[in-house]
Amino acid sequence: MSDIANTPPPPYYAVIFTNLRTELDDGYGETAARMVQLAEQQPGFLGVESARDTVGITVSYWKDLDSIKQWKANVEHIEAQKLGRKKWYAAFTTRIAKVEREYSL
Amino acid sequence: MSDIANTPPPPYYAVIFTNLRTELDDGYGETAARMVQLAEQQPGFLGVESARDTVGITVSYWKDLDSIKQWKANVEHIEAQKLGRKKWYAAFTTRIAKVEREYSL
Repeated sequence: MSDIANTPPPPYYAVIFTNLRTELDDGYGETAARMVQLAEQQPGFLGVESARDTVGITVSYWKDLDSIKQWKANVEHIEAQKLGRKKWYAAFTTRIAKVEREYSL
Repeated sequence: MSDIANTPPPPYYAVIFTNLRTELDDGYGETAARMVQLAEQQPGFLGVESARDTVGITVSYWKDLDSIKQWKANVEHIEAQKLGRKKWYAAFTTRIAKVEREYSL
């Protein structure tokens, strides 16, 4: 799905989206890919990481809270969020977190 | 691997560990499982979520920075971290983040 995001030195923000899927596909893959493409075009977008086993975890990184707010209010994203709640996700938790420290190998 | 973590109301902390594995197994699965078991016994541990595709993402949740510091300094965990750097991970990034908001479906 994705690589390790190459983020700048902290502070910046992370949106941790953890979810359980329903069994319904119905355009899920296309919409998920489109949302990544769309997020990448947003101001303040810094990167995204994604993996799925039992749960799916997508972490997107953002310059500040305002960038996240704008992304959440994007019209096409709002439509996808509605479909997600209605069709694709059995459960999810979204957490907004301020990254304070980072270290890498 | 895991379910959606049932965390308390924010604020609390997240450790986002994103990694690429080497091709070497050599006890990786056992150590990874043992580290989850050990983390669960630590003071301040709130939950963990984990998934792997191309990248592995493990997010563990903690009461405060001090709990994270203690977990990082756990003797058995330090040993596992050394083996991780030497054998199991081709690359990783660890991010310490303060969860400010959370919402769920």
